[in-house]
Amino acid sequence: MDLKEEFVRYCSDLQTKICGALEEVDGGGKFEEDRWEREGGGGGLSCILSDGKVFEKAGVNISRVQGLVTPSLAKQLNTTGSYFFATGVSLVIHPLSPMVPTTHANFRYFELYDGQMKKIDGWFGGGSDLTPYYLFEQDAVHFHRTLKEACDLFDLSFYPAFKKHCDDYFNNTHRGDERRGIGGIFYDYLRSDSKFTGEFLFGFSKTCGDAFIKAYLPIVQRTKSFPYSENHRRWQEVRRGRYVEFNLLHDRGTLFGLKSNGRTESILMSLPPRVRFDYHDQPRSGTPEAELMDVLKKPKNWC
Amino acid sequence: MDLKEEFVRYCSDLQTKICGALEEVDGGGKFEEDRWEREGGGGGLSCILSDGKVFEKAGVNISRVQGLVTPSLAKQLNTTGSYFFATGVSLVIHPLSPMVPTTHANFRYFELYDGQMKKIDGWFGGGSDLTPYYLFEQDAVHFHRTLKEACDLFDLSFYPAFKKHCDDYFNNTHRGDERRGIGGIFYDYLRSDSKFTGEFLFGFSKTCGDAFIKAYLPIVQRTKSFPYSENHRRWQEVRRGRYVEFNLLHDRGTLFGLKSNGRTESILMSLPPRVRFDYHDQPRSGTPEAELMDVLKKPKNWC
Repeated sequence: MDLKEEFVRYCSDLQTKICGALEEVDGGGKFEEDRWEREGGGGGLSCILSDGKVFEKAGVNISRVQGLVTPSLAKQLNTTGSYFFATGVSLVIHPLSPMVPTTHANFRYFELYDGQMKKIDGWFGGGSDLTPYYLFEQDAVHFHRTLKEACDLFDLSFYPAFKKHCDDYFNNTHRGDERRGIGGIFYDYLRSDSKFTGEFLFGFSKTCGDAFIKAYLPIVQRTKSFPYSENHRRWQEVRRGRYVEFNLLHDRGTLFGLKSNGRTESILMSLPPRVRFDYHDQPRSGTPEAELMDVLKKPKNWC
Repeated sequence: MDLKEEFVRYCSDLQTKICGALEEVDGGGKFEEDRWEREGGGGGLSCILSDGKVFEKAGVNISRVQGLVTPSLAKQLNTTGSYFFATGVSLVIHPLSPMVPTTHANFRYFELYDGQMKKIDGWFGGGSDLTPYYLFEQDAVHFHRTLKEACDLFDLSFYPAFKKHCDDYFNNTHRGDERRGIGGIFYDYLRSDSKFTGEFLFGFSKTCGDAFIKAYLPIVQRTKSFPYSENHRRWQEVRRGRYVEFNLLHDRGTLFGLKSNGRTESILMSLPPRVRFDYHDQPRSGTPEAELMDVLKKPKNWC
């Protein structure tokens, strides 16, 4: 099995499936396609839905790029490889209603080659995470439980390890260890070895990708008609500010993409549509907003 | 003359003067004071005006901090000094109307000491720059001419050098060399040497600081009653997105402050109050929005 080509195909199928499912839930907005090519090799397809009934901005992107390992890439990957191949699907969904959580997911596969184009390394990475503005415990539990079930099919150590990795990674350290959201799973550098074959890890990545729709869409269905006020919306925009801070200050993928002349428009597709930066935006204690903050400061176990 | 103490006093006086002048132009909003202390030595006073009639968010901050040179500070400054002292005033003003430009200014003084607290280095830095959403040539000329006049009182080489430095610095390289605004002046590491005494450079910094009010406020007075539409406001919010991108991705002061455990709330005071991130936000050619873009891509000489 050519993992590379199989994964390219899988990402494209998943993109189609996710866009279709989101359009159906939205009941109004349509994805627009933007196909692009990369100088140096490869390209991608960005699908964007703007100003839908449920989704204010949703972007689902696939890419397949290859090329020379530049010095900065060599440094980041700590490799002596000469060429790389990378493919993946990534998405960020920003709903209009502050009662519906934002979500992000990303599934990718990477290969490295020596000067003779012989494969010397390869790994899978990815995950899904949820960023609510108002916390509904049953939704947090549903999201995590769905991801745990997908992980448990493969290895019982996966969910606890990848849940922790996710909490550790999506962390606004400059805000005193305030997590971006309530997490999910995040894994990286999953290589085939004596324990796991490449096919096994490919199967795991596909199962996680398929689980995303089951983890997120029921939450949208349940919360999309909840009423909300201007104040709820204000809080959503303040919290979206933290989303921007995380992505521009800390997210390795964003910073690496921008520094390596990636496609800026597709990389920054992740930024929320409307955002607010207030001075001193901490909620009063005892409010639902403060309740969310407590969980962001101290991640919970939901399963 | 103790430059350090004199500059501390000057920054505090300038803060008072600028806040007073802004309140007068605003005719409604009042600055709130937020005094803070820094773990490790020193502190500051942040003054914030929110939701005024003219200014949606204005922050004027002074600080005076000292402490040990940490390894990351040593690396950034390329120094073997043991202790540092830093003081300055910095401000960012975000008007409500898209017809009124945003501005930023900053005047600072830095000293380094060896292990015996003997002064081994000291320098001035600072500048002012303008970020219009709609370009009125006469305002751009007024802003630059006022700063040039201040510079020319000291050395004829200053304005051309510091104008270029400003254009080079406030540059969103990840957007294909799109400047944050139409510039102004920006200088750094101005040390006393055989040509310039410390007193001369102190005088220069004060003159630049005093010139800020003369450079900016007449533009606010002239443009604050211009009518505008929802579309103008939308464009302002899109451009404010680029302001956020610059500050979080490229601004050395912001990144250094956050990484060195500075006061996050005061550092991020610079972020605009309401922001929009659209996918594909390029204006159609021939519009006033496209005209601004031309100047941001190719800085002009205004004097």
